[in-house]
Amino acid sequence: MMKRLLITGAAGGLGTMARKRLSHLAETLRLSDIVPMGEAAPNEEHVVCDLADGAAVEELVKGCDGIIHLGGVSVEKSYDLIEAGNIRGVYNLYEAARLHGLPRIVFASSNHTIGFYPQSQRLTADMPTRPDGWYGISKVYGEAVAHMYHEKFGQETAILRIGSCFEKPVDRRMMATWLSYDDFVSLMERVFTVPKLGCATIWGASANTCGWWDNSHIGWLGWKPKDDSEVYRAEVEALPPRPADAPDVLYQGGKFTADPVFRD
Amino acid sequence: MMKRLLITGAAGGLGTMARKRLSHLAETLRLSDIVPMGEAAPNEEHVVCDLADGAAVEELVKGCDGIIHLGGVSVEKSYDLIEAGNIRGVYNLYEAARLHGLPRIVFASSNHTIGFYPQSQRLTADMPTRPDGWYGISKVYGEAVAHMYHEKFGQETAILRIGSCFEKPVDRRMMATWLSYDDFVSLMERVFTVPKLGCATIWGASANTCGWWDNSHIGWLGWKPKDDSEVYRAEVEALPPRPADAPDVLYQGGKFTADPVFRD
Amino acid sequence: MMKRLLITGAAGGLGTMARKRLSHLAETLRLSDIVPMGEAAPNEEHVVCDLADGAAVEELVKGCDGIIHLGGVSVEKSYDLIEAGNIRGVYNLYEAARLHGLPRIVFASSNHTIGFYPQSQRLTADMPTRPDGWYGISKVYGEAVAHMYHEKFGQETAILRIGSCFEKPVDRRMMATWLSYDDFVSLMERVFTVPKLGCATIWGASANTCGWWDNSHIGWLGWKPKDDSEVYRAEVEALPPRPADAPDVLYQGGKFTADPVFRD
Amino acid sequence: MMKRLLITGAAGGLGTMARKRLSHLAETLRLSDIVPMGEAAPNEEHVVCDLADGAAVEELVKGCDGIIHLGGVSVEKSYDLIEAGNIRGVYNLYEAARLHGLPRIVFASSNHTIGFYPQSQRLTADMPTRPDGWYGISKVYGEAVAHMYHEKFGQETAILRIGSCFEKPVDRRMMATWLSYDDFVSLMERVFTVPKLGCATIWGASANTCGWWDNSHIGWLGWKPKDDSEVYRAEVEALPPRPADAPDVLYQGGKFTADPVFRD
Amino acid sequence: MMKRLLITGAAGGLGTMARKRLSHLAETLRLSDIVPMGEAAPNEEHVVCDLADGAAVEELVKGCDGIIHLGGVSVEKSYDLIEAGNIRGVYNLYEAARLHGLPRIVFASSNHTIGFYPQSQRLTADMPTRPDGWYGISKVYGEAVAHMYHEKFGQETAILRIGSCFEKPVDRRMMATWLSYDDFVSLMERVFTVPKLGCATIWGASANTCGWWDNSHIGWLGWKPKDDSEVYRAEVEALPPRPADAPDVLYQGGKFTADPVFRD
Amino acid sequence: MMKRLLITGAAGGLGTMARKRLSHLAETLRLSDIVPMGEAAPNEEHVVCDLADGAAVEELVKGCDGIIHLGGVSVEKSYDLIEAGNIRGVYNLYEAARLHGLPRIVFASSNHTIGFYPQSQRLTADMPTRPDGWYGISKVYGEAVAHMYHEKFGQETAILRIGSCFEKPVDRRMMATWLSYDDFVSLMERVFTVPKLGCATIWGASANTCGWWDNSHIGWLGWKPKDDSEVYRAEVEALPPRPADAPDVLYQGGKFTADPVFRD
Repeated sequence: MMKRLLITGAAGGLGTMARKRLSHLAETLRLSDIVPMGEAAPNEEHVVCDLADGAAVEELVKGCDGIIHLGGVSVEKSYDLIEAGNIRGVYNLYEAARLHGLPRIVFASSNHTIGFYPQSQRLTADMPTRPDGWYGISKVYGEAVAHMYHEKFGQETAILRIGSCFEKPVDRRMMATWLSYDDFVSLMERVFTVPKLGCATIWGASANTCGWWDNSHIGWLGWKPKDDSEVYRAEVEALPPRPADAPDVLYQGGKFTADPVFRD
Repeated sequence: MMKRLLITGAAGGLGTMARKRLSHLAETLRLSDIVPMGEAAPNEEHVVCDLADGAAVEELVKGCDGIIHLGGVSVEKSYDLIEAGNIRGVYNLYEAARLHGLPRIVFASSNHTIGFYPQSQRLTADMPTRPDGWYGISKVYGEAVAHMYHEKFGQETAILRIGSCFEKPVDRRMMATWLSYDDFVSLMERVFTVPKLGCATIWGASANTCGWWDNSHIGWLGWKPKDDSEVYRAEVEALPPRPADAPDVLYQGGKFTADPVFRD
Repeated sequence: MMKRLLITGAAGGLGTMARKRLSHLAETLRLSDIVPMGEAAPNEEHVVCDLADGAAVEELVKGCDGIIHLGGVSVEKSYDLIEAGNIRGVYNLYEAARLHGLPRIVFASSNHTIGFYPQSQRLTADMPTRPDGWYGISKVYGEAVAHMYHEKFGQETAILRIGSCFEKPVDRRMMATWLSYDDFVSLMERVFTVPKLGCATIWGASANTCGWWDNSHIGWLGWKPKDDSEVYRAEVEALPPRPADAPDVLYQGGKFTADPVFRD
Repeated sequence: MMKRLLITGAAGGLGTMARKRLSHLAETLRLSDIVPMGEAAPNEEHVVCDLADGAAVEELVKGCDGIIHLGGVSVEKSYDLIEAGNIRGVYNLYEAARLHGLPRIVFASSNHTIGFYPQSQRLTADMPTRPDGWYGISKVYGEAVAHMYHEKFGQETAILRIGSCFEKPVDRRMMATWLSYDDFVSLMERVFTVPKLGCATIWGASANTCGWWDNSHIGWLGWKPKDDSEVYRAEVEALPPRPADAPDVLYQGGKFTADPVFRD
Repeated sequence: MMKRLLITGAAGGLGTMARKRLSHLAETLRLSDIVPMGEAAPNEEHVVCDLADGAAVEELVKGCDGIIHLGGVSVEKSYDLIEAGNIRGVYNLYEAARLHGLPRIVFASSNHTIGFYPQSQRLTADMPTRPDGWYGISKVYGEAVAHMYHEKFGQETAILRIGSCFEKPVDRRMMATWLSYDDFVSLMERVFTVPKLGCATIWGASANTCGWWDNSHIGWLGWKPKDDSEVYRAEVEALPPRPADAPDVLYQGGKFTADPVFRD
Repeated sequence: MMKRLLITGAAGGLGTMARKRLSHLAETLRLSDIVPMGEAAPNEEHVVCDLADGAAVEELVKGCDGIIHLGGVSVEKSYDLIEAGNIRGVYNLYEAARLHGLPRIVFASSNHTIGFYPQSQRLTADMPTRPDGWYGISKVYGEAVAHMYHEKFGQETAILRIGSCFEKPVDRRMMATWLSYDDFVSLMERVFTVPKLGCATIWGASANTCGWWDNSHIGWLGWKPKDDSEVYRAEVEALPPRPADAPDVLYQGGKFTADPVFRD
């Protein structure tokens, strides 16, 4: 059990769930976001913090022995916003970690690092990235940061390429990308339990029958997702059909591949 | 649900089963064979048709929005018969499809496209073919046709390399190659449901413990075979033992590898 | 040195060159084509023969201890013509060879078996075929025939995927695909000299700097092409530029990828 | 059912279990060890035998139609002991088998043939060996012997790279390497049942969630391990934590990688 | 021949050489740097420009039909400098290109994208990156930008992973990484001549006997480096020996792997 | 330049050549064999030594900073002889090296480690071994020893899988396997010059046009063989032809694959 686990982006959807479901991992949860996070539970510390502010991030990380980094921009946005939250923000986070004892990090990367692969292709984690926009580029960058800090300084990171972490899949593409809350939680438990983590890339998806991603390289982690989107098949197939050339039918990154560059 | 699904080879063993089990896929089943197919059910249309007759095939295909092509020769026979049914027949079928709206096709290919691989080797669908006779050659040809029509005209095909689609496995080799009727049916359901099929090669076998073929590349299809030949293990092992150098012990194609060229 | 070497398609461009340059390989050259081949040289036998005529082909092959099979259709044509020359013709040829001592065969296959690969991709001989038309399909078929006769009957074949065998490259695509006459000749010498040939697939191209095809798997053959299209670079670059989306710029098969299906 | 199955090393831990659990495989179990093996059951023959004694080994093997070779040194020891039991011993065994009818052999190899791979790497059986000491070297040697006798003389062997075959896993590393007794037994049943075995390398581990080894290449064998170390997770995690740089945390071979060369 | 070729970083070492040697590629060379670039030759336009200034970069790019992007930081520096020149700078450049006709770009990437690979490993361009510092991370990012703009907007880029582009190799590591000026020039000629470039990753090294990088995937480009560092072997071996565990002996990235994070 | 270079097996064919051609590598050559080695040159020390004698080998190795280990049995012989020279002998050598400063070792391995591969297959050094007899097994063992001493103790070895190191090729198989004396010498120079050697496997063959082995993984070593057996083509082709099923035509190991087990 950790002393203090930092969760960034704690006001977001995934952060809110993580906050509720992961309190058993540490004596104290330190939660942070750029906006207030509501009332603090007894074992919680709340810190409102802009990831682009290096001094603030250093303060935030100090004293933590684990970090789940969900903060920053999580969809396609303007370059300025992505640079602040996901480029500079990740620099700030890893520098803070390097200066304060190398707490183990979960880095929320994304399927948008590989979004331009067709949905008919099975992927392994060592295949070249194919980011589908500026958000995806920022995550490729973040993964590179994680690797460099691992090789040079010994910083451990679980690079988690999240598919779609929601209560249930709500469209066809999510049948492949869905990561259930339960599976997310069991993964976090394994990540913070194994004696040695290294810098592993993990496809963040449940055991979906129609999934695209091969996690066999992380068998050693002992994580076995239990959920399968197939139980929602009927519900999803009841939705209106999608044209065969729609981006959410063609590409693993779905609609992101069709987003323009947002200029502001 | 399709308007009209064409099943060729409907008088054969697999066709007869398909006819019974797949009527929910379309408003009308159009059945065809070179011989009569018995009494037509209410939602069936019967067309006796020689696949070597281009005009007849064009007529047959017109108005269908899906085709399960089981017709033609299905064992080692003389070249003339194979040319008529499987070479010219496939030309006729794909031309008809090209001229009439590119209905999605299931092409019944075969393990005999790769029959000379030893049974001890696990195969992926992108390995070179090793046909075990003229029947196997005709199926390599048919797969090439499917690919060309896909790349040049956008025709979609499920290339189904059928192992042994029977009620149950009746010899040792079929323990590996068996495709249960239920799994065949669930596969057809998926093939005609996915928004985009492309030109996928599918190993047509159930989830047999002792299987040879790796279907992980079509995870995206969402087909999960449920049956395992292992439940018939005792029954099959009760058969007389086979010598270690018998073709049905050595090769994935089994006895076909020992067939001569039939000259008439 | 062979007793009698059969060259089919001897009236064609490649056949005419082969006839002149390969007479040292055998005491007698037996030349065949569907049209007359001009005056016979002292060591030549001429046989006008339709490859679709099985009895004639059997007669043609009898008594030969080597075959260079250049005959049949060599560009995109109607299915009927391709079936006669390249489908039935190849059946006739291999059956004749099987019945008459398994003379070693060079089978003129083609880059059109893989024509839909982009020009930016390097290919190895074990990659899946991607034929670019009916001509390419017939060559995929022919390769399958060669493999089956090898595995079942021990027939040896050099499957030669010819790029562009001409005096010199005359367009940009041929800079990659060019096979010089000298390199063709030295290859034929090796093919008929090695004690064991098996059923090898050989990319038929010279040592072109900008080539696409990896022949490292046939190093054992001892064939080292000497020519490089680069000496014709200036000449070819002087031609009018081609648009970046032209089929001869995009695909290894060039313009064949844009050919329609010829119906007659 | 075999006439006579020889189990060497029958006095050891694994041998004792095998003796109890495998009596249904043969009419007679011939047990051997360098030390006495207690009272013989009705269907047992006991032979005390030094594997380094060629004549004795030949006598031992004569009349057997199957061999499970567990004998020799099974941990890091001095070279002299390893040479006697595992180097010369294996020569003696395979020569005896060659001279007496090529009985099918199970060769107890070890994870110590690949012990220097990191625990974070998934292995296939065709990857280069990385032995972690002299014991591991002797097993690399033994595997080479098995392959040579297979290719030259047709001797069949199941090369079984045993992880940790014990009643249950008792430390973290064994969570990945554990081979349950039941799974060992079912494997022996398959090995002596399949019509053709060849010379297959088999990872000897149960279906552990956190396992390292890929057995998909031996699907044809029809062996499906049923046990998963995960049921012992709580028990094992209750042990004191291990430092991240301990050999049993870093390497698949665990503590063996840190053993010195024992000089006597 | 291009109308106007932009070379950024034109005041640097590589830029100065490029300026002299590449004037035949375009009617006008537009040169830019953050510092003055000396006297302008008749066919040169000089623009002092900070790459972090988006409006200035847009102005710079307008009217160019080719870009050789050598600008930005080229060694390990503080994050702020790298962000300005290599992160934001590349955003500015690609946005400008997108808005002004997608001129073909050469992006000067670096061996420091893969600097943590050992020198004993041969690399292909599709292997995962292993950046050796913040400079290397910025180049991984830049490559991701190039790929995304290619897949989403059709922007073509030659991603050139430069080894060491100097007059000659001056230490042992540069024997492997050296890219001669002549080979750089011939590469630029090919990059701006081929009808279709796509988004190719090119190892920027000469034909060094002891090189590490496999460029066989870009054979189609028709670039054949002519120089080999081996002619400088004696000179380099005369240098004092290096310890076997020095970073410039261990890693492809050499001393960069030992650089700290510069905080200002 | 080394102080003292030990060459074992110095009375053999390869040893005799090495002794003459490698004297520039060290101030003193220490030569050893089990038989006398003739008159000692001024810079030579001669030591008659049985490799099976551990104390003698330790004495032999002491004081050397490099070893070229050509000693032991070099053809198929009885197990006893192979065990003494190649099994125990290699144990003795590596233990001596470990106890005396880890001098860099060249280990003369052999193509007979992979002798059962067909001549038509191109090999990389990481493919599984396929020894063709007891001699080949002993070399697989020796390679395992080299790897273990490297990973556990840091001992560096060049594992040199020698093809046929003779003055010139004298049969067809040697056209592929020939290693010229000059190329052997230049390799030794590189092996003892590179700052870091590790434990590299090197195919010991010249740049033969018809070679089988891929040395691209050791490009970093900077060894470029200059000779090509092709200059002896006419001479070798003048020999009587070999049947297509002769072991020297089928297998890379040639006639060794047909050797029996020599029992004394």
